[in-house]
Amino acid sequence: MTENEVEIVEVGPRDGLQNIAKYVPTAVKIDLIRQLAGAGFTRMEFGSFVSPKAIPQMKDMEAVLEGLPPMPGVTGMTLVPNSKGAQRALAAGVKDLIFVMSVSEPHNQSNVRRPTEASIADFKATLEEIDPLGELTIRVGLATCFHCPFDGVIDEDKVISTIEKIVPIREGMEYAISDTTGMATPAHVKSLTKRCIDTFGGSARFCFHGHDTAGFGIANVLAAMEGGIRSFDTSVAGLGGCPFAPGATGNIPSEDVVYLFQRLGVTTGIDLEKLLDAGTMILAESGAPMASHVRAIPRARLFADLLGIPPSRAVAA
Amino acid sequence: MTENEVEIVEVGPRDGLQNIAKYVPTAVKIDLIRQLAGAGFTRMEFGSFVSPKAIPQMKDMEAVLEGLPPMPGVTGMTLVPNSKGAQRALAAGVKDLIFVMSVSEPHNQSNVRRPTEASIADFKATLEEIDPLGELTIRVGLATCFHCPFDGVIDEDKVISTIEKIVPIREGMEYAISDTTGMATPAHVKSLTKRCIDTFGGSARFCFHGHDTAGFGIANVLAAMEGGIRSFDTSVAGLGGCPFAPGATGNIPSEDVVYLFQRLGVTTGIDLEKLLDAGTMILAESGAPMASHVRAIPRARLFADLLGIPPSRAVAA
Repeated sequence: MTENEVEIVEVGPRDGLQNIAKYVPTAVKIDLIRQLAGAGFTRMEFGSFVSPKAIPQMKDMEAVLEGLPPMPGVTGMTLVPNSKGAQRALAAGVKDLIFVMSVSEPHNQSNVRRPTEASIADFKATLEEIDPLGELTIRVGLATCFHCPFDGVIDEDKVISTIEKIVPIREGMEYAISDTTGMATPAHVKSLTKRCIDTFGGSARFCFHGHDTAGFGIANVLAAMEGGIRSFDTSVAGLGGCPFAPGATGNIPSEDVVYLFQRLGVTTGIDLEKLLDAGTMILAESGAPMASHVRAIPRARLFADLLGIPPSRAVAA
Repeated sequence: MTENEVEIVEVGPRDGLQNIAKYVPTAVKIDLIRQLAGAGFTRMEFGSFVSPKAIPQMKDMEAVLEGLPPMPGVTGMTLVPNSKGAQRALAAGVKDLIFVMSVSEPHNQSNVRRPTEASIADFKATLEEIDPLGELTIRVGLATCFHCPFDGVIDEDKVISTIEKIVPIREGMEYAISDTTGMATPAHVKSLTKRCIDTFGGSARFCFHGHDTAGFGIANVLAAMEGGIRSFDTSVAGLGGCPFAPGATGNIPSEDVVYLFQRLGVTTGIDLEKLLDAGTMILAESGAPMASHVRAIPRARLFADLLGIPPSRAVAA
C-alpha cells in the first residue's frame, strides 16, 4: 500500500451479524459476502466458529463457507475461540484465523472465564497444535485496548505489556487494536496506535478496530491514521447495534469510512454504490438498525461531490 | 481562554428549533434557555427576528426575551436578516446580533434572493444605520464555507475573498465559519480555519459552526481545533434535524462535543449532567429527533470515566 492507500476490512458478516437477534438465513449471509466482495473488499470477517448455543447466529458457519462462490483475491477470516473452533475452521478450509483476547482482566474473565494470561497460553498451545509449521495467517483480536466496560480507561502500558507476551509466540501476526466499547478518544487512539507500531512494527502488523458508541468513530479512524495505521475494520451499515439505542454499540459504518477516504482522496478500492446496495439488502433482510450517516444522504447528492457535479444538478438529474 | 480551554456556543434555541416543524411554546423556549444557562453556557443563540411567515417557530422572539429571568454572565445572540429585524432586536434590548451571508452565490440567492455582494452591502448599510457608534457586538454567520447544496465543494479562495470584503466594514467582528450542509471533510476544516486565522486573525475572531450530516461532526470539531479555533457552535441533543432522516442535517450535538472535551481534559465550563437534563426536556417537548450518540449511553456509565470510577461499579450503584 502507498501512503495514499488504505485497507478497509469488512467485519459486518461477523462482528455485525453476531450482535443481531434475528436469525439471518444462510443464503442471505452468502449473498452479503458475495455483494461485499463485489464492492471491492479484499479482506473480510466471514463469521466465527463458536458454540451455536453461545451465538446462534453463527451456527451455519460451515454452510456459509460451503455456499460461497469462488471469489479470487478475497481473503475470508473467521474467528475461533479455542482449539475446537480452530479445528472446525481448518476442516472447512479456512486459512485465516482470528483469536480474541482481552487486555482487561475482568473483560477477559467475563468473555471466556479465565485470566488474559491463560488465554494467551491457550492461544500458544492451539497454534502449536493446529499449525506447527506456521502456514496459517493469524490475527489477534486484542479487545479493550482503550476502554473496558468494567475497568474504564485502560493504561497504554498494559496494552504494550500484553502484546509483548503475544509477539514471541509468532512473528508477523496481525493485531486488531480494538476499541471494544467505542468509548476511546481520538487522542488516545493516535497515541496508542503510534506506540504499538513504534514498539512492535518490525514483528507485528496492526489494524484499528473501532465502534461508534460515543460518536467518535470517524475521528478515531483519522486518529489511528495519524498514528500510522493503514488498515481499518468497519461494518456495512454500521451493523452490530445502533448507537441510538442504550447499550448498543455498532462498528464504525463502512459507508461513512469509505466516503470519508474518497472525499480525502485516499484510495480504498471500494465501490461505494455497490457497498450501499449490499447494506440496503442486509438491513432489509436482518431488520438491523441503520447506523450510517452517509446512507441517509440521497445518493445523487452523495456522489455529486465525488464526481465533481454540482449537487443541485445531480439531484435534478 | 487558555490553550486548554474552549468555548461551546449553544445554538439549539435558534438553529436547532427553527428547523423543527412542531411549534414549541414560549414557556418551553424560555425554560430551555434557562436550563442551558444553568448548565454553564455563557453564550447562546437565543433565536432570530425573522418574518413569522418564513419561520413560524420564531414568531414569539420578543416574548421569549421578555420572559427570560436575569442570567448574569450569559450573552444571548439573535439572528437578524435585515434592518427591520435588527430594529426589532434593538427594541427588545439585544446587543449581540448575527447577520448571515453565504459564500456561495446560488445559496445566497436561494436564501435571500440577491447576490452575496448585495447582502454584504445591505449588512454595511444596516450597521451604519442601527449602530453608527459601533456599540453592538456583531457576528457574521458565513454560510457554505466548505460545501454548498447547489455548487458542491467551495474553493478556499472564495471564502477568503468574501471575508476580505466584510472585514473593512468593522474591525473585530466574529465570523462563524459554517459547514452549512455538514458535508465538509476534516482536512478541509483544518485547512480553511487555519487560513482564516492566519489571514485575518488580527482584525477578526473566528468560530466553527458545523453540522453532522456525513457523520464527520466530531472529527471536524477536532480539525477546527487543530486549525486554531477555540469556539464551537453546537446544539443540545443535535436539535435541528436527524442525520438518520434523508435531507435532515442537525447541528453537532452539544453533549457529544462537551463529553469529547471533558475526556480530552479540555475545559468547557459546561455541566454535562445539566446539559443532558435540558436535552431530555426539549426532546420531550418538541418531539425532535435525537441525534446525540452520548445521550444514548446510560448516564452512570457515561460519567464513570470522567469520575475515574470503574463503569461496572457506576452502573451497579
